[in-house]
Amino acid sequence: MPTIRNVAQSAGVSIKTVSRVLNKHKAVRKETVERVNRAIAALDYMPDLMARAMRGGRSGAIGLVGDDVALTPYAVEILRGVQDACASEDRMLLMSNTKGDPALTEHAVRALIARKVEGIIFATRYLRILHELPPVAGVPAVLVNCIAPTGDVPHILPDDAGGSHTATAYLVRLGHRKIALVSINPAIMAAERREGGFRRAMHEDGLTVPGGRVQPGQHFGAAGEIFTTDQAVAAILEHEPDVTAILCGTDAIAMRVCNALRVRGAIVPRDISVVGFDDFTMITQGLDPPLTSVALPYYDMGQAAVARLRAGETNDVATGISLSCPLVIRQSCQAPRTRELLTG
Amino acid sequence: MPTIRNVAQSAGVSIKTVSRVLNKHKAVRKETVERVNRAIAALDYMPDLMARAMRGGRSGAIGLVGDDVALTPYAVEILRGVQDACASEDRMLLMSNTKGDPALTEHAVRALIARKVEGIIFATRYLRILHELPPVAGVPAVLVNCIAPTGDVPHILPDDAGGSHTATAYLVRLGHRKIALVSINPAIMAAERREGGFRRAMHEDGLTVPGGRVQPGQHFGAAGEIFTTDQAVAAILEHEPDVTAILCGTDAIAMRVCNALRVRGAIVPRDISVVGFDDFTMITQGLDPPLTSVALPYYDMGQAAVARLRAGETNDVATGISLSCPLVIRQSCQAPRTRELLTG
Repeated sequence: MPTIRNVAQSAGVSIKTVSRVLNKHKAVRKETVERVNRAIAALDYMPDLMARAMRGGRSGAIGLVGDDVALTPYAVEILRGVQDACASEDRMLLMSNTKGDPALTEHAVRALIARKVEGIIFATRYLRILHELPPVAGVPAVLVNCIAPTGDVPHILPDDAGGSHTATAYLVRLGHRKIALVSINPAIMAAERREGGFRRAMHEDGLTVPGGRVQPGQHFGAAGEIFTTDQAVAAILEHEPDVTAILCGTDAIAMRVCNALRVRGAIVPRDISVVGFDDFTMITQGLDPPLTSVALPYYDMGQAAVARLRAGETNDVATGISLSCPLVIRQSCQAPRTRELLTG
Repeated sequence: MPTIRNVAQSAGVSIKTVSRVLNKHKAVRKETVERVNRAIAALDYMPDLMARAMRGGRSGAIGLVGDDVALTPYAVEILRGVQDACASEDRMLLMSNTKGDPALTEHAVRALIARKVEGIIFATRYLRILHELPPVAGVPAVLVNCIAPTGDVPHILPDDAGGSHTATAYLVRLGHRKIALVSINPAIMAAERREGGFRRAMHEDGLTVPGGRVQPGQHFGAAGEIFTTDQAVAAILEHEPDVTAILCGTDAIAMRVCNALRVRGAIVPRDISVVGFDDFTMITQGLDPPLTSVALPYYDMGQAAVARLRAGETNDVATGISLSCPLVIRQSCQAPRTRELLTG
């Protein structure tokens, strides 16, 4: 393998000059920089990054600490966004999977600091408070999909409330008045936010949300998540058989709500419009009809996290960033039939 | 932060002895090892891993090079398996995303070697020949879900043929004779293997596969994958309206085959049994009825890759490992009605 000495000899400069070029010092003449870079290319020289990290205290690497579920199909887009951003800056990504365990999280952070990472990203599957966040002295940190208990670490969140507000307002514009919500697991922080956006949109249009119109579609059981979509749909239609649209807390809930409606002989969207949340395309594009859904900006959140770490050096950025959740319109919604009859 | 010198002073030994304990030399007395480890724990000492890597040429890290699609929801389980195995050995995982591009792949490998990784895992979404595999001199490598063009790098593959053989044999045992296949994208290597397993199982039971019984459910278009499941189901039922079971190349295909059957008024499994492939639970558990599917052992493949890198040091293992694809039985299959009538 060629060494820095070979590069210096080939370019006819000192080792110190090659080192300055590698470290992008400004005090090197343009011609010299070009000569050194030509020698590096010709020799196929690869600087020893670990040696550089040792000397300069920098590794060119970023650490990602996920709570296991950051690796589920749901949230893998966060990782893809982080990784693409790292690649475009030629930074390496070091990953740890902590399962949300405080001891494992602390161990991961210590290992990353020992490797002199330039920043640490913490990511979670569910929007939540990151109670297991250990001290990260001296290394910039940013939280993705989670919030520090003390609130003093920058975070990047999806605008869940805005997303369900957008979806609800869309249904209202189509003419729906009696809109129900089959909500995500109430133990999840996003549940309250999504319900809040739904209620705000209804309220803004002067529409009420009577009791029984919001039903949980999911809860945590001993063996993991349990769906209660059948019961939710039954409860909603018992209270008000003339509900014309159902907003769902996730696409997985929407898929099961469509099943429950089909069993009852209701056709989507002719009889009831359905909107999902997540825009998990494997579900939304595969359903018949394809599902209108609120997209989570996970990829952008991953990219924003890397950008935030870089910006952190300037100390001139807001602590919290909230990325909007756009509505992806497909074929699962239409104007309600009752309204068609009234206006037709 | 405590240094190795602090540990040596606290344990009453030389720095060299602490270093020997850290590097697990055998020439240190058990009592000394225990004393040093107690001092490490008491001081909360974290060895400088980069400095160790510099001296010893080892970093304790493993590199994972994926072709972008290794980060899709489909294949993320490979990553989870790799990561859990790394965590249990206290190894760090360094990740690169190459999008299958030869230049990016070579760059990623050089960067990983510069960081002195102890091994490199190459993973792909689709089973394929890894044409862009660069030389990996001096570092153990293992391929997951892909094969080296020269065939001389260890690889870990799913037994696709065995999986569809198992599923087909299961349908035959239920009494099905006329079984169709809506196959995965024929451009994908797994397509041939899955069709091969299907044909072998049919042949073993003395069943024929007339022309028209195997239809592609998917192909690559300009904008990505295009599903042709409607046409596939129509072609199969035109040829033989009395087909009683359909094996599908993926769960996404099976989901759409169920849609196409529903439109035609056929009820699954009463009229036609359906089997998927992948056991992607978001689909298989969400469909009504829940889908019987062949599971891909992605998590185990990720774990096996790390184990293979470790075993590589002994040079005493087979080059290719094939992991079986078990059938996960749910409610989308039953004995064919015609047979019930005959035997009832």
